[in-house]
Amino acid sequence: MAKFKLDETDHKILGMLIDNTRTPFTDIAKKLLISAGTVHVRVKKMEEAGIITGSSLSLDYQKLGYSFIAYVGIFLEKTSQTQFVLNRINEIPYVTVAHITTGKFNLFCKVRARNTEHAKQVIFKIDDIDGVYRTETMISMEESLNDKTRLMRSIFDEMMK
Amino acid sequence: MAKFKLDETDHKILGMLIDNTRTPFTDIAKKLLISAGTVHVRVKKMEEAGIITGSSLSLDYQKLGYSFIAYVGIFLEKTSQTQFVLNRINEIPYVTVAHITTGKFNLFCKVRARNTEHAKQVIFKIDDIDGVYRTETMISMEESLNDKTRLMRSIFDEMMK
Amino acid sequence: MAKFKLDETDHKILGMLIDNTRTPFTDIAKKLLISAGTVHVRVKKMEEAGIITGSSLSLDYQKLGYSFIAYVGIFLEKTSQTQFVLNRINEIPYVTVAHITTGKFNLFCKVRARNTEHAKQVIFKIDDIDGVYRTETMISMEESLNDKTRLMRSIFDEMMK
Amino acid sequence: MAKFKLDETDHKILGMLIDNTRTPFTDIAKKLLISAGTVHVRVKKMEEAGIITGSSLSLDYQKLGYSFIAYVGIFLEKTSQTQFVLNRINEIPYVTVAHITTGKFNLFCKVRARNTEHAKQVIFKIDDIDGVYRTETMISMEESLNDKTRLMRSIFDEMMK
Amino acid sequence: MAKFKLDETDHKILGMLIDNTRTPFTDIAKKLLISAGTVHVRVKKMEEAGIITGSSLSLDYQKLGYSFIAYVGIFLEKTSQTQFVLNRINEIPYVTVAHITTGKFNLFCKVRARNTEHAKQVIFKIDDIDGVYRTETMISMEESLNDKTRLMRSIFDEMMK
Amino acid sequence: MAKFKLDETDHKILGMLIDNTRTPFTDIAKKLLISAGTVHVRVKKMEEAGIITGSSLSLDYQKLGYSFIAYVGIFLEKTSQTQFVLNRINEIPYVTVAHITTGKFNLFCKVRARNTEHAKQVIFKIDDIDGVYRTETMISMEESLNDKTRLMRSIFDEMMK
Amino acid sequence: MAKFKLDETDHKILGMLIDNTRTPFTDIAKKLLISAGTVHVRVKKMEEAGIITGSSLSLDYQKLGYSFIAYVGIFLEKTSQTQFVLNRINEIPYVTVAHITTGKFNLFCKVRARNTEHAKQVIFKIDDIDGVYRTETMISMEESLNDKTRLMRSIFDEMMK
Amino acid sequence: MAKFKLDETDHKILGMLIDNTRTPFTDIAKKLLISAGTVHVRVKKMEEAGIITGSSLSLDYQKLGYSFIAYVGIFLEKTSQTQFVLNRINEIPYVTVAHITTGKFNLFCKVRARNTEHAKQVIFKIDDIDGVYRTETMISMEESLNDKTRLMRSIFDEMMK
Repeated sequence: MAKFKLDETDHKILGMLIDNTRTPFTDIAKKLLISAGTVHVRVKKMEEAGIITGSSLSLDYQKLGYSFIAYVGIFLEKTSQTQFVLNRINEIPYVTVAHITTGKFNLFCKVRARNTEHAKQVIFKIDDIDGVYRTETMISMEESLNDKTRLMRSIFDEMMK
Repeated sequence: MAKFKLDETDHKILGMLIDNTRTPFTDIAKKLLISAGTVHVRVKKMEEAGIITGSSLSLDYQKLGYSFIAYVGIFLEKTSQTQFVLNRINEIPYVTVAHITTGKFNLFCKVRARNTEHAKQVIFKIDDIDGVYRTETMISMEESLNDKTRLMRSIFDEMMK
Repeated sequence: MAKFKLDETDHKILGMLIDNTRTPFTDIAKKLLISAGTVHVRVKKMEEAGIITGSSLSLDYQKLGYSFIAYVGIFLEKTSQTQFVLNRINEIPYVTVAHITTGKFNLFCKVRARNTEHAKQVIFKIDDIDGVYRTETMISMEESLNDKTRLMRSIFDEMMK
Repeated sequence: MAKFKLDETDHKILGMLIDNTRTPFTDIAKKLLISAGTVHVRVKKMEEAGIITGSSLSLDYQKLGYSFIAYVGIFLEKTSQTQFVLNRINEIPYVTVAHITTGKFNLFCKVRARNTEHAKQVIFKIDDIDGVYRTETMISMEESLNDKTRLMRSIFDEMMK
Repeated sequence: MAKFKLDETDHKILGMLIDNTRTPFTDIAKKLLISAGTVHVRVKKMEEAGIITGSSLSLDYQKLGYSFIAYVGIFLEKTSQTQFVLNRINEIPYVTVAHITTGKFNLFCKVRARNTEHAKQVIFKIDDIDGVYRTETMISMEESLNDKTRLMRSIFDEMMK
Repeated sequence: MAKFKLDETDHKILGMLIDNTRTPFTDIAKKLLISAGTVHVRVKKMEEAGIITGSSLSLDYQKLGYSFIAYVGIFLEKTSQTQFVLNRINEIPYVTVAHITTGKFNLFCKVRARNTEHAKQVIFKIDDIDGVYRTETMISMEESLNDKTRLMRSIFDEMMK
Repeated sequence: MAKFKLDETDHKILGMLIDNTRTPFTDIAKKLLISAGTVHVRVKKMEEAGIITGSSLSLDYQKLGYSFIAYVGIFLEKTSQTQFVLNRINEIPYVTVAHITTGKFNLFCKVRARNTEHAKQVIFKIDDIDGVYRTETMISMEESLNDKTRLMRSIFDEMMK
Repeated sequence: MAKFKLDETDHKILGMLIDNTRTPFTDIAKKLLISAGTVHVRVKKMEEAGIITGSSLSLDYQKLGYSFIAYVGIFLEKTSQTQFVLNRINEIPYVTVAHITTGKFNLFCKVRARNTEHAKQVIFKIDDIDGVYRTETMISMEESLNDKTRLMRSIFDEMMK
């Protein structure tokens, strides 16, 4: 469980970074009436505590022609093959998320593809990995929500208490 | 389908931003032996084309005490309630992704929670939304892969051809 | 069980019509060295016996932008609503086939749509019919076979024996 | 997506051919007060654009003793066998439709047979193809709708806009 | 648990009655070299012990045009309706067996019908009983075994020990 | 479809035999005011037409200690093993009914056993037959209906029309 | 996570109590060559730490005529009824375990009953609780393992490290 | 079925032992105004009749860091491996209960673990036993009831009648 406590200043810095990861530290400093060095120190401290581990680009997949999303459940022949299959999956860039699950499926993946035809090819590639017994696919008709900033704010608010 | 074409310079800029979204434009310029203004123009152009839409912070959820991940399939009473239920789901920060699916489930969500007890509360909150008929939950034992940079590189490589 | 018997001539006429429904009777007559009147009489006789009931156009749905095929299983609230729901389904041109089934589903339909987004709209329209309780959708990744001529030839061959 | 545009004349010709594929061009010409040559040119043009790819006979399967319809879902041992199994299925005339699906089943077929006994034989034939792991059958109690003309009219209407 | 013991004579009488329920007692007596009165007494005793409760005709359902067999699983709205629904089912002569089950289904029935169309009507009649929520049907392609005499002999053999 | 027609006398004879298969022909004759020879002739005729194929004893399985009923669905490794497995099943007297089904299961059986422990042994015996891949069992909590006389009367009534 | 550490003496006391909960403290003291007071103090300390919370009788349910075990999955109408339904279940002594689960079922119970008939009554009682939508039952053919002492020893061994 | 009859004194002794298994016989004797010898005799008699077979410690698993409970359904490759697999399962202390079931699963287990990560390891250990084909896991969000004393009291009350 997280024991790290955020003070008012940490919290405000995080709030600005959530809004725009690329906000320069000097801008943050000006806005919060503190020195850029302080911002730097605080961010470093939070990075060390694992609160911030980096930042990632956001693309408009729709515009880029990658609007097809599928969730693929994988049945393995033996769970001892889990790590091997995960390594093979890791070589397919169209699989963006993979979980070990213990319900119906052994592994559960999220696939982003250009269209039905492309998705078929990606799924066939997964199906052909040694140790993959069968797959079951669920297709998304619309990604209605994909937003981690609400969760981040909620976590940071908790750390203030 | 994406028609936008990337040239060598665009591609290199994107490569550096994928590695670190916060790389200052001046650093990129120095590395690529071009002016900071050129970097600025190129990034703006790619933002307008929707290739880049922003950037988001990455947290170490494990360290922050949010290591419990569940996928929740939702059955609605009527599909006409889809938008209403999505709005309610949008008010729960622990739901980070939601899809309209047309297979077994009407909606399919990803939940991040602190632990079993917390996940129970989140799922109960979803269950209690008007119009939600039933939910079925699949629990992740390990998030083995969560990486969109491989997909991004693959998309950008394609746009070079 | 069919009791109708085909003779050599009937069989040859059907063979030519299967190849091309629009073959003029005069062409058939020439090829078979019989009179056009005979062709006419034979076809009429076979139409009356229900062997031929008409002919239908074939389109290239792929080229026309209708490449998305889904099978939709429908659960009804009460089977007494079967006919009512079938009438409503009949008003949706994108549903090309509908069956009463007695396994898991009450009704089972084939839907042809432009793309994921369009399919979602068609399925939502089905979901919103009074008496429809829930639907479950299976998406086709490729229509690998859609050919009734093999069956027709097989039936006609049997009728020769 | 289809870019082809239909004008008033094309649309009327298609309307008449949907009603009766065998309508002679001279009849169409008379009705529309245009020359048979124009009809010919227009149909050719639409054939080249893939709007019309041919026509097929319609039989009264009920009268011919083929009233039993089943949908058969196929699980393969390996998806790499997909094409091989499809080739074998193609040799069974009683299978009129086959899809590659990625949900629960690998392949999904429509079977037309004489009766329960005959359907059993056809399904056993599918079951015995190398690479077929298991099949699951859903039986139709009534084909309530099988009509593509509504879809055709809808597509042609759209192409007028 | 059955405590009744059969002696050699009882056992032989039962063996002859299993072979042909209508065998006259005088024939049995002659064969076993005992008096008809003894046969009568023994049969009466076994009837009182519940070993024999009567006999039933066997028909050739195939020849009589009742070759269609389906198993129907019934989901009730409330188990308190169990007895009411069983009474309604009892009014449908085509349901020959009904069980209360506690797995997936609440009730499980065997239906004998003339053909697909007739089975549809019987199933619809079950579906329309008040309190029946949904049904799921499994169709028999062949009744390969329907023989209680093997069980009877096995039970009677056990009672000799 | 059955074409055999029953007259008033046949119908009455059948009615008496349904009530008690062992009713002597002389009793039937007296009741119907016809000669015993006539009864004999009529019954013979109906036996030849397959209307009556014999008769079977009824036992009180509950009293005999065989109150446990289970339905067992069997998955085969290959459908080509169907006949072999049926032959093995035929050697287990506790399996009283077996069907070839083409839905979820390949074969579907009814088992009568003494109790949970005995049922386990019977099911294990089925599981151990070569070619049986897996079984799934549904247990009956109460056999609420097991009566073919209603169906018989209904069939005989139809044959009078 | 447990932070409590056991020393050699605690561990030996627990070992003896696991073997026989009723072992008098004086016997334990004699065996371990310590004073009964020390045993008393150590047990009290472990009770306060929650390591021991009490002890329970073990019965031979088989001999007592309670050999029937079933697992019952419960679907609720609304999860807001969870606590109410649990309170009702708590009034049925034959339900010995109940869990809130978030997979397919809302609640999952273990039932111990005398036989099939008794289990049916218990399950019907659960089915009739307000808010219970449906239940699904899985029947145990043999309780092959029911032993917590192995787990206890494993936990206590860990606490020694 | 249990034939053993409890008298008033037996019943009261059991009542006190259910409340606290460790109650010394002298305390029971004092409370019931009988001699300690009588208590001893009665308890011995009930132990011989199998009413009491021993007693077991109760731990607070939550406090000891073992709050994660999962139910694991096991599919075997062949039921002939049942005993072998049960022996292997018996070597995993975290499996506290195991049943032979004949529904969907061959075996059904209860697992107690420290957390998600630990549960994964236990389940993988089960998955890796020879003869285990696949497993399916259901996770408990809360053990709301785990109490056999209500059942014991109910059984003992019955034995008084």
